[in-house]
Amino acid sequence: MVEGAKNVLELLKSDLKIDQLFGTEAFLNQYSSDTHSYDFREVTERELSKVGSLTTNNAALAVVEIPDVEKPDLQQSLLGFDRVKDPGNLGTIIRIADWYGFRHIICSSDSVDCYNPKVVSATMGSFARVRVIYDDLSDWIAQFPNSYGATLNGGDIHQVKFEEPAFLVFGNESTGISEDLIDQLGQEVKIPAYGGAESLNVAVSTAVFCDNFKRSLKGQ
Amino acid sequence: MVEGAKNVLELLKSDLKIDQLFGTEAFLNQYSSDTHSYDFREVTERELSKVGSLTTNNAALAVVEIPDVEKPDLQQSLLGFDRVKDPGNLGTIIRIADWYGFRHIICSSDSVDCYNPKVVSATMGSFARVRVIYDDLSDWIAQFPNSYGATLNGGDIHQVKFEEPAFLVFGNESTGISEDLIDQLGQEVKIPAYGGAESLNVAVSTAVFCDNFKRSLKGQ
Repeated sequence: MVEGAKNVLELLKSDLKIDQLFGTEAFLNQYSSDTHSYDFREVTERELSKVGSLTTNNAALAVVEIPDVEKPDLQQSLLGFDRVKDPGNLGTIIRIADWYGFRHIICSSDSVDCYNPKVVSATMGSFARVRVIYDDLSDWIAQFPNSYGATLNGGDIHQVKFEEPAFLVFGNESTGISEDLIDQLGQEVKIPAYGGAESLNVAVSTAVFCDNFKRSLKGQ
Repeated sequence: MVEGAKNVLELLKSDLKIDQLFGTEAFLNQYSSDTHSYDFREVTERELSKVGSLTTNNAALAVVEIPDVEKPDLQQSLLGFDRVKDPGNLGTIIRIADWYGFRHIICSSDSVDCYNPKVVSATMGSFARVRVIYDDLSDWIAQFPNSYGATLNGGDIHQVKFEEPAFLVFGNESTGISEDLIDQLGQEVKIPAYGGAESLNVAVSTAVFCDNFKRSLKGQ
């Protein structure tokens, strides 16, 4: 289920297979050039909000087939998430992965479902460009020549010279990366702190990590 | 109102003036060394969840006096937010400000209330160390020799040589920084994108911005 104007408009531009489309009169008028060639059923805001997961939805909703996910090219760097549980966090992480050009992310099998409507909503359209694979992270770490994990005891990220292709690992909201995965990682990396907070949100850490990773690869 | 174990424990370590404290038996037993010198009233989880804003709260809740906020030292850099509306975003921003050592943030008067319980919850305890001032951002930009704004058209943040003391400005979730404030800023700065997403969440942008700012000041 894909909800909201931004997400449904991104869906129409994607190659995902659409099953059903619903839109309000206002939405269909405002975006007529985007929507006119699709078979939308016109509904009221009240109907959309009743059937969907959002508190209010004055725009659109789609039912979409879950896509087959091709195996990613191991020459490209990937992000891995160990037991991420919060749907808003995973949605924000998918948006960040999309911003930084990662086409796939790997989640441990006990992470939150990426097809949870709250995850899809939080991606702000990026669900259409980033695929999520649920698998054993240990197998993925083993397939990459370089692996880095975001921890609170690692080397200063501002000093790390990252190398590609790399597998970047992030941990659970409360407990971080599992001990057995940490033992397997090439390097632990820390975002330096300057104040009193004990940790950063996992999506926030992902963004700061990706930014430093891309910057390091450019040699800056 | 301060809710949840982490937030109430941080409150006890702060100089904020506490009016009332409530805790479950389990919380008071687990944290007896932190809580024994305070006047907690023992309540059930059900009572806490009924009176509070969280869906579930199995730990603690406090009623706290809104503090007087001293005027910040203008020799230190500050963060400014133009019309931030989402309570979860402002809470996450306060946590990020605390991580990066900013003691104050300035919000435009039409931003979300920092004493909204959802904001306090999302700070994960950082509400105790970061003060929020509601004021006209234009007056603050004018008081700093250096000002930078996060926009989608600015200079590459990886190339910017930041100078202190600086006022760093971030905009509304949908519309960014107001045009009149952009005109007043010393420099617009952009976080480089590598993929398909059109934007980053404002809290995520704040973290990436603060990280690059601190790194630039260290000369790295």
